[in-house]
Amino acid sequence: APQVDKGVDFANYFCTYGYLYHQKEMLSDRVRMDAYFHAVSRNKHHFRDKAVLDVGTGSGILAIWCAQAGARKVYAVEATKMADHARELVKGNGVDDIVEVIEGSMEDVVLPEKVDVIISEWMGYFLLRESMFDSVICARDRWLKPDGVMYPSHARMWLAPIRSGLTDQKMDEVNCSMNDWRSFIEETESYYGVNMSVLTKAYREENEKYFLKTSLWCNLDPHQIIGTPAVIKEMDCLQATVDEICTVTSQLVHPINIDRSRISAYAGWFDVQFKGSEQNPAKDEVELNTAPDKDGGTHWGQQVFLVNPPIRVNEGDKVNVSFKMSRAKQYHRLMDIEIISELELSSGKRFPPVTTKVAIE
Amino acid sequence: APQVDKGVDFANYFCTYGYLYHQKEMLSDRVRMDAYFHAVSRNKHHFRDKAVLDVGTGSGILAIWCAQAGARKVYAVEATKMADHARELVKGNGVDDIVEVIEGSMEDVVLPEKVDVIISEWMGYFLLRESMFDSVICARDRWLKPDGVMYPSHARMWLAPIRSGLTDQKMDEVNCSMNDWRSFIEETESYYGVNMSVLTKAYREENEKYFLKTSLWCNLDPHQIIGTPAVIKEMDCLQATVDEICTVTSQLVHPINIDRSRISAYAGWFDVQFKGSEQNPAKDEVELNTAPDKDGGTHWGQQVFLVNPPIRVNEGDKVNVSFKMSRAKQYHRLMDIEIISELELSSGKRFPPVTTKVAIE
Ligand SMILES: Nc1ncnc2c1ncn2[C@@H]1O[C@H](CSCC[C@H](N)C(=O)O)[C@@H](O)[C@H]1O
Ligand SMILES: Nc1ncnc2c1ncn2[C@@H]1O[C@H](CSCC[C@H](N)C(=O)O)[C@@H](O)[C@H]1O
Repeated sequence: APQVDKGVDFANYFCTYGYLYHQKEMLSDRVRMDAYFHAVSRNKHHFRDKAVLDVGTGSGILAIWCAQAGARKVYAVEATKMADHARELVKGNGVDDIVEVIEGSMEDVVLPEKVDVIISEWMGYFLLRESMFDSVICARDRWLKPDGVMYPSHARMWLAPIRSGLTDQKMDEVNCSMNDWRSFIEETESYYGVNMSVLTKAYREENEKYFLKTSLWCNLDPHQIIGTPAVIKEMDCLQATVDEICTVTSQLVHPINIDRSRISAYAGWFDVQFKGSEQNPAKDEVELNTAPDKDGGTHWGQQVFLVNPPIRVNEGDKVNVSFKMSRAKQYHRLMDIEIISELELSSGKRFPPVTTKVAIE
Repeated sequence: APQVDKGVDFANYFCTYGYLYHQKEMLSDRVRMDAYFHAVSRNKHHFRDKAVLDVGTGSGILAIWCAQAGARKVYAVEATKMADHARELVKGNGVDDIVEVIEGSMEDVVLPEKVDVIISEWMGYFLLRESMFDSVICARDRWLKPDGVMYPSHARMWLAPIRSGLTDQKMDEVNCSMNDWRSFIEETESYYGVNMSVLTKAYREENEKYFLKTSLWCNLDPHQIIGTPAVIKEMDCLQATVDEICTVTSQLVHPINIDRSRISAYAGWFDVQFKGSEQNPAKDEVELNTAPDKDGGTHWGQQVFLVNPPIRVNEGDKVNVSFKMSRAKQYHRLMDIEIISELELSSGKRFPPVTTKVAIE
């Protein structure tokens, strides 16, 4: 359950989505766009003469595609003032007789009927950041017909050990910042007669939190992956509950497949599938994948969790990982991650587990 | 009066002040530090054996100086968790018998006595951004003795016409962004069958708001000032009311003193004085000035309000300015500025006034 006031949450969360600039960033992500576009346009049987709900329509793009695919009616719900632009865009593309844009938060909106399809682009960094899937679950439980279909239908979270220069770089930044702090202490003492050194520990902690214990956004090169990626979680969007995404725990094994390397970080990403439902499968299954990709990736990139100090590994070793992600105490849309890594050599020898804690902000 | 929920306001406003990093930025501003340090240490008669209130103590620096200047008791109020660090610092500097750090918002705190001095570093960009002076006024009206002294005692807001390459640069950025938008429109149409052109006007407006109609932070070179600076507002901190700072209006005249130039922007800044009170004046008056300074300036810099298109001027001309600053509708800590410029040539000929609207964010 949200730990912050709803007003605070909405004020903070929705502000960026109110800008066309931000919507355009998503609309320019070709991997994302292709996936949704093909999912809809190659599976018209899911839309023809159907009622559709688009949760968080933003610019209205998905709603328009659904209308173009033959939907009888599309309810396009958007919490921000972007709803006005969506309405314009719907009209400008001649589907205003089909798409009804409703400004409001999904949790509060009342529809005149249940729908056959819920479509939504709700995925945040590492799938669950922003916790927007909560709103989709809420919409599903209230407005989807028993035999309805979810777009996307499935989602997976992935983790892999990687090598990266970022860990050394960020450690340098901490050191740099602490050097600077030392001259600051000296100056404050000599010019202003106040000794700041009691705050050194707190300042170091603040810096380590900022530079080392906060996840980084990156579009990695696939060559940086040094162990087999593993699925942390698999979700059927028809079944998933808020409880099960509030805390995600998983035991993973990553065989190392590069010699004389270091795990200097883990990378987390996701993919989602558009497979329809069991009774009503997709004709053409589509996947949206945000894994490291040599052709450039998506606006989601991957989330990188630094391992400090890095762990030396060789081909044939494996890392046994206990993964845990929970929602940040102060703000339910952000996440705290704990990764416990146990290195197991090909000889069977195991090293003491090391714990990495990182916040997704 | 605040138009937003108190919870939303506090969540947004106070978050940065909770970081030592941010406090350090202020503590490293030598101009700021020297002014407060000298104001206190050269006017010990204001502090010796007195009760002092420090509104928003942050790291506790001002409170410690007051104790070092001989105060009997210092109440150091701070809304954020920085209060814990202030407490450590107070202790580390051996004045914990004098300085009492109180975590809470000034509006809610109850003191056991009235005080002789209120000290506070409440100034935001262009003096009033952040609207923190409201809290100082509230503290003054509740807790300052009738013959008490304010530190600082006076404040002034300044405006001057300037020349700057920023206006052209920001216009280029708008053009660049609109060119990019045009290819985006074409791609979205050809790849995804949706015509986005109805949003072009809104996108241009969003861009102009962002690049041209939002004030910029700058430490200007004094040579960029092309007309005589004028005082927009002068405040006696003992007398000032919230009403009078909610909306600030002023008629100004700026004689132009550089030939063949362009007013491409106005710059706004402030200074504050530590003069004590009429009955109890300072022995050594100190001023903190944030005007353009060739030696580098302060962390406040100046706020730059772009004039688009620029106004051509010559030496001997003058600009008659109607200035108005009011609080932003959605958020009382930010400001909306309107500057109406009327160019008057040395011949007496006047040009039609032009209006510049800018938001301070
Ligand atoms: N609970 C909620 N109710 C309504 N809109 C929401 C919501 N939570 C998030 N949103 C909106 O959902 C959008 C997600 S971004 C996706 C936008 C659009 N569907 C596209 O694919 O391009 C944002 O515009 C955000 O404002
Ligand atoms: N209403 C209020 N009640 C308590 N603290 C407040 C406040 N409004 C602002 N503050 C605090 O006031 C501080 C202003 S910054 C100045 C810090 C310190 N006095 C110095 O000179 O270095 C911030 O730490 C902020 O959190």
